[in-house]
Amino acid sequence: MLTSIRKLLNSTELCVDEALCGLVRSASGLCLLRGLRVVVRSDLKNLNGRVGLVSGGGSGHEPAHAGYIGAGMLSAAVAGGVFASPPPASILAAVLHLHDAGASGVLLIVKNYTGDRLNFGLAAEQARNRGVSVAMVIVADDCAFERPGKAGRRGLCGTVFVHKLAGALAEEGYPLDKIVAKVTEVLKGIGTLGVSLSPCSVPGCLPSFQLPPGDMELGLGIHGEPGIQRSKVACADQVVNTMIDHMTNPSSQSHLLLNSGDSVVLCVNNLGALSCLEMAVVTRAALSTLEARGVVVARVMSGSFMTSLEMAGVSLSLMRVDPEVLRLFDAKTSAPAWPNLSSVCVSSRQYTVEPPALRTWAQGGDAHSEGRSDMICVLSLQRISSALLDRQEELNALDRASGDGDCGNTHAQAARAIQEWLCIHVVPGCPGQLLSVLAGLVQEKMGGSSGGIYSLFLTAAAGHLTEGLSHAGAWANAVHAGIQAMMRYQTTELGAESTRDLRARAGRASYIAAERVTLPDPGAVAVAAILRAVLESLEEQS
Amino acid sequence: MLTSIRKLLNSTELCVDEALCGLVRSASGLCLLRGLRVVVRSDLKNLNGRVGLVSGGGSGHEPAHAGYIGAGMLSAAVAGGVFASPPPASILAAVLHLHDAGASGVLLIVKNYTGDRLNFGLAAEQARNRGVSVAMVIVADDCAFERPGKAGRRGLCGTVFVHKLAGALAEEGYPLDKIVAKVTEVLKGIGTLGVSLSPCSVPGCLPSFQLPPGDMELGLGIHGEPGIQRSKVACADQVVNTMIDHMTNPSSQSHLLLNSGDSVVLCVNNLGALSCLEMAVVTRAALSTLEARGVVVARVMSGSFMTSLEMAGVSLSLMRVDPEVLRLFDAKTSAPAWPNLSSVCVSSRQYTVEPPALRTWAQGGDAHSEGRSDMICVLSLQRISSALLDRQEELNALDRASGDGDCGNTHAQAARAIQEWLCIHVVPGCPGQLLSVLAGLVQEKMGGSSGGIYSLFLTAAAGHLTEGLSHAGAWANAVHAGIQAMMRYQTTELGAESTRDLRARAGRASYIAAERVTLPDPGAVAVAAILRAVLESLEEQS
Repeated sequence: MLTSIRKLLNSTELCVDEALCGLVRSASGLCLLRGLRVVVRSDLKNLNGRVGLVSGGGSGHEPAHAGYIGAGMLSAAVAGGVFASPPPASILAAVLHLHDAGASGVLLIVKNYTGDRLNFGLAAEQARNRGVSVAMVIVADDCAFERPGKAGRRGLCGTVFVHKLAGALAEEGYPLDKIVAKVTEVLKGIGTLGVSLSPCSVPGCLPSFQLPPGDMELGLGIHGEPGIQRSKVACADQVVNTMIDHMTNPSSQSHLLLNSGDSVVLCVNNLGALSCLEMAVVTRAALSTLEARGVVVARVMSGSFMTSLEMAGVSLSLMRVDPEVLRLFDAKTSAPAWPNLSSVCVSSRQYTVEPPALRTWAQGGDAHSEGRSDMICVLSLQRISSALLDRQEELNALDRASGDGDCGNTHAQAARAIQEWLCIHVVPGCPGQLLSVLAGLVQEKMGGSSGGIYSLFLTAAAGHLTEGLSHAGAWANAVHAGIQAMMRYQTTELGAESTRDLRARAGRASYIAAERVTLPDPGAVAVAAILRAVLESLEEQS
Repeated sequence: MLTSIRKLLNSTELCVDEALCGLVRSASGLCLLRGLRVVVRSDLKNLNGRVGLVSGGGSGHEPAHAGYIGAGMLSAAVAGGVFASPPPASILAAVLHLHDAGASGVLLIVKNYTGDRLNFGLAAEQARNRGVSVAMVIVADDCAFERPGKAGRRGLCGTVFVHKLAGALAEEGYPLDKIVAKVTEVLKGIGTLGVSLSPCSVPGCLPSFQLPPGDMELGLGIHGEPGIQRSKVACADQVVNTMIDHMTNPSSQSHLLLNSGDSVVLCVNNLGALSCLEMAVVTRAALSTLEARGVVVARVMSGSFMTSLEMAGVSLSLMRVDPEVLRLFDAKTSAPAWPNLSSVCVSSRQYTVEPPALRTWAQGGDAHSEGRSDMICVLSLQRISSALLDRQEELNALDRASGDGDCGNTHAQAARAIQEWLCIHVVPGCPGQLLSVLAGLVQEKMGGSSGGIYSLFLTAAAGHLTEGLSHAGAWANAVHAGIQAMMRYQTTELGAESTRDLRARAGRASYIAAERVTLPDPGAVAVAAILRAVLESLEEQS
């Protein structure tokens, strides 16, 4: 992935400006301060005496922080270079811009890194010298290190919770000191831990660390700083269990206090390159792991919230909540990176419903009249089955010349399925019902495109043969409807293809040049065998 | 990335069920039909005689399709295994469930793949046999192949546009035939092209194709089917330009007709593992490329909409729009994977604002009185500069023992910046103003944490020395305030650390064991040199 970062992006510096431009242009609620890497709400007139919120930090963590700008979240975000703290002059510009726009005070929300603390601190002092009321909260939510060094716990994805809660408070008109007090209290109940399956690489640089394929690193930072433990990648349930164990281990100085009965908000954060499929699997694992410990998951958010360039990994953030915090979390926001969440408790919601009862082929033909036409049907089915089984190898051989050589096998599967079904079921009196049963049978037992095509024919034909309507004309209509249905769905351009073109139009054989195909089509041979078997049955009985 | 897919996920089959569970549990608007891979709206009572919309297909394309379920989009989605079409019985269950819930009809939205056409077609026939009014639209938006084969153009991310428009029409109560007619018309103006920098791998399988590092493949499908052209990865602007050229090339049978003056909706789709930074850069490039051709980008959506597991790549989808289509696109939806978009024309929006005018160090000291105290200041600054330049090598040597060896260099940079400033500026009469100037100077010219720390001290001190308040007591207060500010932001745990602990608490030197440091701290030596220079200046003048 190093390559992608290196080449798609122009240079480390230029790519940050281009990315900010791309983001701001995609979200009409955002504006750029010209010439600076400062993004502000485009509707700052709505600040209207409220507290303005500023966050920021190095780039490479998108959508953090500019994606969290909007009513009910941040008022501005300041970006540095990739993984580099932004300059104080830019932070000061953001603060003064909000002040000029009528903010009653400005709160700086800063992740705990030396550079960010210094630069945001400096801007805060400079703003104070100009008469702006400024406060700062430091987010240090990392649960990785049992004995954190002097630099303290790092600021990770839990910062997004702080953006949300402080944003809701500011929107409600709370003054600066009240917001600081509330956020400081909530911060005690926020913890984050990450795990990675691959490193990330700053554009133009080598990967931040080496991780052999199949290994994972627990507790690493969002700049690729080393973690606490390296091990073989396990399945999601095991990985998540290890993570929650570590995060809540009371013997660690950075643990998150979590007891059975506690309510939490869970954030499952894609560090960059995990697939959406994997993310959903990890989310399920995190929910069941927490619930197994008696923790109530009140809300869950799953997606890319605080990334680390193209690192393939995930972090879990937990926030203990009470009804008041939950109310703030649920408050509306227009921030483009905030997900479409609902205000329903995850752990207590019933999320499955009963499907409609389908009458399957296995249930077909339980009760009905028997008669002469039934006998013809049984005889036909027996002959068809035998004919297909007899020709299994012949069909396979033909198919090897133009396809993948399994045409005989799939037809034999269908034949055996029909034989088995005839042993334990009575043939329905209504021919339409019989065709429906057969449709289900081949669909389920024959497999492949052939199963689908036969099933399509049989299903469409079945609709034209009811109990009271099974004379020769009805059969002709049924066969016609079946062929039409096959044309409808098998041809690839609806109505546009000539149905006389006998070359394969779809399926694997469609990739074989027509010139190479000189032998008869195995599917056509099979259909001929089936029709001959039906004909012989009818002749025998007439 | 192969590893991550292989190991985090339990098995190809299990992972699909786990992912569906994770998704449905994360979104209270979704429910699972028990025992099936069918996701339905949990508020189906709101269908209330409207048309129900069903889509689906193989898994591995998340958030497609279940993420698009909600009011104003899909009513149900059916998932198959990874990259495998779902069985007709599941599709039928979805259709019948909507029918039972009161849908007036059901529209199947199907991507153009043989398996999907067959299986959805079969389910449609079966549902019709049961009296359900069913229609089907096939999405074939791929612009890759100039002469598409018999299988036709593939269905790609443009399908998401169809979900949105059909969803809006259904929500407004349009009947089935009207929805089909409108969607069929809009489909002519939808085109998609993908590019990839890495393959994807189905869980448990080898990567779908090989791509050497630094190469990219244009026009490949969302299952890793081969594309049309392989080349070296270029920068985003070039890649996007090639893509739009190819998509709109009139000599290609699959081109999208696009003229200057046309309005479009643009979807920039992450195929899986592209970083958010790269996505924003590509989005910017796509906007400017289209606008350079006179195309008006009415709306843009950028994110993960139709992925291909962990493929590092991006696809661009374009949809020509008129005001009516745009109105449908803008309509509200509760679908969890639909982004938070605004209804403002992208191309015509002004997205930059003027930043506040900052009085920088370079502007400082333009007009003021000169006096004796100014002379002391000038002298002090000259002495400080000389002292720091004299000791550059000594400071570097000390720093090599405990840090990265550049302490002398950074102080020399500050010294030279002060000397240059003194040559072209007059020293301000107010000492506070001078300190502010110096704060800006070291912040901008000295760099590193040292620049930040000195700047912090000077800024905080400056606030205590106004024009009328510069006696010895005021200076003492100023120095005290400066030290406090340094403590506030430099120490890593606010107020928690003892300021007497002289070990490095932050920055790169904090990672060096205290035992290894036996020489004096270079920063302390530099500060001592500065204070000595000031003292000597004062003594000389008194």
